[in-house]
Amino acid sequence: MQNFVYKNPTEILFGKGMIREIAGRVPQDLSVLFLYGGGSIKKNGVYEQVKAALKGHRVTEFGGIEPNPLYETCLKAVEVVKKEKIGFIMAVGGGSVLDAAKFIAAAACFSGTDPWTILLEHGANVKTALPIGTVLTLPATGSEANGNSVISRGATREKLYFFSPHVFPKFSILDPETTFSLPVKQVRNGIVDAFVHVMEQYMTYPAHAPLQDRMAESLLQTLREVAPSVLNKPKDYEARATFMWSAALALNTLIGCGVPQDWSTHMIAHELTAFYGLDHAETLAIVLPGVWQYKLTAKKKKLEQYGQRIWNVKTAKEAILKTETFFHSMKMPTRLGDYKISAKEAARKVRERFAERDSVFGEHNDISPDAAAKIIASRV
Amino acid sequence: MQNFVYKNPTEILFGKGMIREIAGRVPQDLSVLFLYGGGSIKKNGVYEQVKAALKGHRVTEFGGIEPNPLYETCLKAVEVVKKEKIGFIMAVGGGSVLDAAKFIAAAACFSGTDPWTILLEHGANVKTALPIGTVLTLPATGSEANGNSVISRGATREKLYFFSPHVFPKFSILDPETTFSLPVKQVRNGIVDAFVHVMEQYMTYPAHAPLQDRMAESLLQTLREVAPSVLNKPKDYEARATFMWSAALALNTLIGCGVPQDWSTHMIAHELTAFYGLDHAETLAIVLPGVWQYKLTAKKKKLEQYGQRIWNVKTAKEAILKTETFFHSMKMPTRLGDYKISAKEAARKVRERFAERDSVFGEHNDISPDAAAKIIASRV
Repeated sequence: MQNFVYKNPTEILFGKGMIREIAGRVPQDLSVLFLYGGGSIKKNGVYEQVKAALKGHRVTEFGGIEPNPLYETCLKAVEVVKKEKIGFIMAVGGGSVLDAAKFIAAAACFSGTDPWTILLEHGANVKTALPIGTVLTLPATGSEANGNSVISRGATREKLYFFSPHVFPKFSILDPETTFSLPVKQVRNGIVDAFVHVMEQYMTYPAHAPLQDRMAESLLQTLREVAPSVLNKPKDYEARATFMWSAALALNTLIGCGVPQDWSTHMIAHELTAFYGLDHAETLAIVLPGVWQYKLTAKKKKLEQYGQRIWNVKTAKEAILKTETFFHSMKMPTRLGDYKISAKEAARKVRERFAERDSVFGEHNDISPDAAAKIIASRV
Repeated sequence: MQNFVYKNPTEILFGKGMIREIAGRVPQDLSVLFLYGGGSIKKNGVYEQVKAALKGHRVTEFGGIEPNPLYETCLKAVEVVKKEKIGFIMAVGGGSVLDAAKFIAAAACFSGTDPWTILLEHGANVKTALPIGTVLTLPATGSEANGNSVISRGATREKLYFFSPHVFPKFSILDPETTFSLPVKQVRNGIVDAFVHVMEQYMTYPAHAPLQDRMAESLLQTLREVAPSVLNKPKDYEARATFMWSAALALNTLIGCGVPQDWSTHMIAHELTAFYGLDHAETLAIVLPGVWQYKLTAKKKKLEQYGQRIWNVKTAKEAILKTETFFHSMKMPTRLGDYKISAKEAARKVRERFAERDSVFGEHNDISPDAAAKIIASRV
């Protein structure tokens, strides 16, 4: 087992009716920025619940955070924060709104000249941030329970992440009922996103960490098992609750403690979203099998373990096949061709970008720009 | 799944050499109480490492915390805290030292007249506490990663617990190398303690919580699997690391989120330690099979699930038998007769005490004083 440091101070409030618990948790003297996305919360009752819980506070609303939240939009929110002397950010929505809240919270307190450097330095230059509370309405990214954020820059088609201990939410409300009205495509995306988050902390090589392996496998098995009910029975509270808690634990960083990790699928997938506008989960489903196939020898033992424990198959190749079949069963494509994107062109673009940045990924630091291009080229 | 609130702000620093990380984590202006137990840390190098990391601080030592730490001893430490104007408690040892630190931290700031009421009210009257850091040297109780503490009163043979969000350690150092010199009996006790902590959050009835079930089973399976190496190869770093992390996660309260719990084994076992002075784990190993046998019908489905997934047996009775056999394989007795204690007398004493306190336990609130007496009487 590798040495590690783990700290996750976010308070999770889980279950139906929990939104009202916001009331005692936002300091009474602070002005609140109520941040949300496209407005679905105004149709499913969440908006009213949050407004009621914030009664007594001066509240400024800021809607319109995009999926793959834009840097440009976040900067507008930062202006509002400064003008309105906001002291607390209440983020209500999916991972995009939560990620945006984290960037806004950090950028509003940033003392440097260019807030884009927060992303270029992956958060190392974040020294403080405004406090954040969240109401999660789309289980997927785990942003409700970590200090991670991914932001896209529209002008340059860049998509970068940052981490800071200062942007963990103070509290996150997870009420499964808020997910009942989600479109099925977003739910499908959420399952795939959570599933791949587990994989990035698991699918490397055996590292004397049997407990971490089994906890990761618990998440994979549960996501696999609950997926049909989550997709087909939108008001099945128990299924949605299990999915919601699984997505949070998939990336509250606990299962990654003490083990090697490989985030190359995410890094490559981010570029496909940046260049082609595919949903985050759609790009993950394309890239993951490609990374595994490319690293078949290095990942063989873990692929076999995963195949045996989750799918009852023997070989690494069968484990990859089973995973693609699982994605297909949720109507999630796994090839660039399914989106009429040229794999050859995508490979060239991503290689160029990674070469510019000297990017290298993978648990053995061997996913070079050329390797990434080969992986993408294989996903015809 | 039940509604729940989960917050665990303790920073875990895990791995060899991590004791030196104390240095940056204790505020420079605070006087430190260095709390420890019987002095084993002076033989295995831990004492020197902690002293070195605390260099520059005014440090007052307080040794001699007992296994099953005594209220009377804790009060002496509180006097030292007040006299020396201590601002930080550095607890170095096993669960007993850590539990004592929590009580001392709370009692030193307690505004009521009688600190014993902290235990009588199970912590509800704790409004603040001194900050605590820990170096864990005996994996077992999970005290390094929760807000729980159990204290014994010598004069009246009482053993009571309290919980407070104010006594979570600010940080806990878990270095598996500090466990290499432990006597085998303490290691055996630690495995059983951690195993039973998982059970108290798991062995009730199915509650639409497949993820929590699998995470609990991950811990049970891992503890079972690693036990022989932990017991027989004291310097096997990887085995000790897995044991240490398992014991922490067994009671950092995560696996108990959203599910019914049954702490009756602990509650009954505490009384056996209070009356007869057996080690905590020894009493757990006696009581657990008795509680299961007594609640065989109510716990049948979970006992069967546990038996099938962990021991590959079919029936609830076989699952109980396998558990006792596992304890015996570690030379852990499971009967009062093994200690020459009269089960009849023990049953009478415990019934009287629970009747005095109107104590009722169990996930269905049906472990009455009479039921507890029957359970004990069955453990001849």
